Amino acid sequence: MAASNPDMSQPGFIDIALVGAGTIGLSFAALHLSAATERPARVIIFDPRPDLKDYIEAKLPEYLSILVRSSGQGQKPTPGNPEALSLASLIETGRLHITSSLSEAVAQAAIVQEQGPERVEFKQQIWPEIESLAPPDALFWSSTSGIPGSVQSQRMQDKSRLLIVHPFNPPHIMPLLEIIAAPDVQPSQSPCLARTMEYWASLGRKPVILKEEITGFVANRLAFALFREAAYLVEKGIASAEDIDQVVQQSLGPRWAVRGPFWSYHAGGGEERGLEGFLDKIGDTIQACWDDLGTLQLQGPEVLGKDSASWQGRLCEQVESQYGKLGSTDLRDRDEKLRSVLDITKP
Amino acid sequence: MAASNPDMSQPGFIDIALVGAGTIGLSFAALHLSAATERPARVIIFDPRPDLKDYIEAKLPEYLSILVRSSGQGQKPTPGNPEALSLASLIETGRLHITSSLSEAVAQAAIVQEQGPERVEFKQQIWPEIESLAPPDALFWSSTSGIPGSVQSQRMQDKSRLLIVHPFNPPHIMPLLEIIAAPDVQPSQSPCLARTMEYWASLGRKPVILKEEITGFVANRLAFALFREAAYLVEKGIASAEDIDQVVQQSLGPRWAVRGPFWSYHAGGGEERGLEGFLDKIGDTIQACWDDLGTLQLQGPEVLGKDSASWQGRLCEQVESQYGKLGSTDLRDRDEKLRSVLDITKP
Repeated sequence: MAASNPDMSQPGFIDIALVGAGTIGLSFAALHLSAATERPARVIIFDPRPDLKDYIEAKLPEYLSILVRSSGQGQKPTPGNPEALSLASLIETGRLHITSSLSEAVAQAAIVQEQGPERVEFKQQIWPEIESLAPPDALFWSSTSGIPGSVQSQRMQDKSRLLIVHPFNPPHIMPLLEIIAAPDVQPSQSPCLARTMEYWASLGRKPVILKEEITGFVANRLAFALFREAAYLVEKGIASAEDIDQVVQQSLGPRWAVRGPFWSYHAGGGEERGLEGFLDKIGDTIQACWDDLGTLQLQGPEVLGKDSASWQGRLCEQVESQYGKLGSTDLRDRDEKLRSVLDITKP
Repeated sequence: MAASNPDMSQPGFIDIALVGAGTIGLSFAALHLSAATERPARVIIFDPRPDLKDYIEAKLPEYLSILVRSSGQGQKPTPGNPEALSLASLIETGRLHITSSLSEAVAQAAIVQEQGPERVEFKQQIWPEIESLAPPDALFWSSTSGIPGSVQSQRMQDKSRLLIVHPFNPPHIMPLLEIIAAPDVQPSQSPCLARTMEYWASLGRKPVILKEEITGFVANRLAFALFREAAYLVEKGIASAEDIDQVVQQSLGPRWAVRGPFWSYHAGGGEERGLEGFLDKIGDTIQACWDDLGTLQLQGPEVLGKDSASWQGRLCEQVESQYGKLGSTDLRDRDEKLRSVLDITKP
């Protein structure tokens, strides 16, 4: 890789421009800044909001602090100098720069990572701008949760440069990145894709390439398939939302944190027959469950609310009565446990 | 509880009869024997197989050893004396007894836990026998994965005594137990249910009561809902089975090991609006995924195999080529990681 990509093999810093400073943008900023790689990131945050500096000074330290205090591989602060990750120090040393000029943000960038508004018009307008302002070999990544790269890139000169790099929330903690190349790009022949995979791997992250654009990507499709059935079981009165959370936390969650579903069922079928033996043995039960799965439909936002006349209203009421309002302490506790689990399960 | 159940509050031992010594039976044997509760279990294993003693001597130590070496709460060996869990010592001290006589197995039992063959006729025949042989206040638990308690209990005098106590594999490691009372029993008014919950809680396990019998219980229904979509995505060529396992291991698994799906989405909606805000914000994406979920059907065993003409044949081929055959070392490694994850995530 190094030979084909002089920028990324140079000593010194790697410039990463973040377009959009919402929760995903700040989470990525913290992740890039805290990575203990050979070439530390210099992060330039671009966002047009007028209070950008105050906002980042208020919010970014929350993201940085959990990465400093924990000790996950690839996320350690500069060895022996955790203070280097204080906001003041990052700004003073030029490792973090904040700007309301897109041109200034991307001019020297090796990577431009976009998490702006989820509107087609915004994406279609900003990518050609970025293309004209950034270095010719800069990587272009969109964090979109739903606008296909082929739609975003329509007005670009070189549509093949745009990659989808879809994070899993919260990205400063969760290792997964779902990567999709432009439709006409062969993954094995894309230097952009190879450099993208290389960067994330160097951070100890787990980028997974999806072969084509698909609604919701893989992780959320799988999650929503399970969520639909979970909501159905609550609606049917089989168990409360809190009890179903317990079921998942005490069974599927730990299992799948350690080994995925295919591995697990392959193991479940025994050494000789593997997955085939598993399907043979309990295929009837699987099919009976599939035949019996609920098929709830979400109603539009006008009937959402906590209106107990709809299933989702009843569900929201129950969840809020069981958990109350979840605040930053709850999230912090979750994130610390997540870091510890990931330390154990990393390959 | 103690007053209503003198047997279980006495000092000394609690007698647990295990009916059926397959993998689930041995796993439960190891779990009961290794529990560091006030009243250690005395386990009597009943199984008609002729080589019962040799079989147990060969297999049970595997299950015990991981519980001895690890240090999960509620599963420590006798404090200061891990040797007490050697098979020889267990048999010598009478804490483990093996018999081919059902009468001998259950005569003094406080708990009779059944994991025999999954055949209606077997269950309907053995429960009245057990009922006539066991003490009148013994708890009766079936580990069945699919035969409803109401079907199993048809020939019993007191049908309300039979509870489903459905484990999640492997039960000596996984905390979840899905509990279902007899159909006409009010959970809040069942001493059997209360004593059952109390026993499992004393082992640091997580019993969850389901309000009624349902195909596949909760954990497997949820797992199979996700598995159907995972298999569909492999079949559609979006990602390989191994890549989808990675997606799950690096995102949903850790998330759900730490917090269940309802909690997670409630947090995802922000402190003010919670789950309602989450559904409001990305309800359209959820519904779009639901509309797009695959609906694969399993073919019968006659076309299973690794026949590449069927989707499950192609899937089995791919999984075996990616993972090879999984043996005891793979399971051991998984189980040790599972123990570590569960140590972190336990409440």
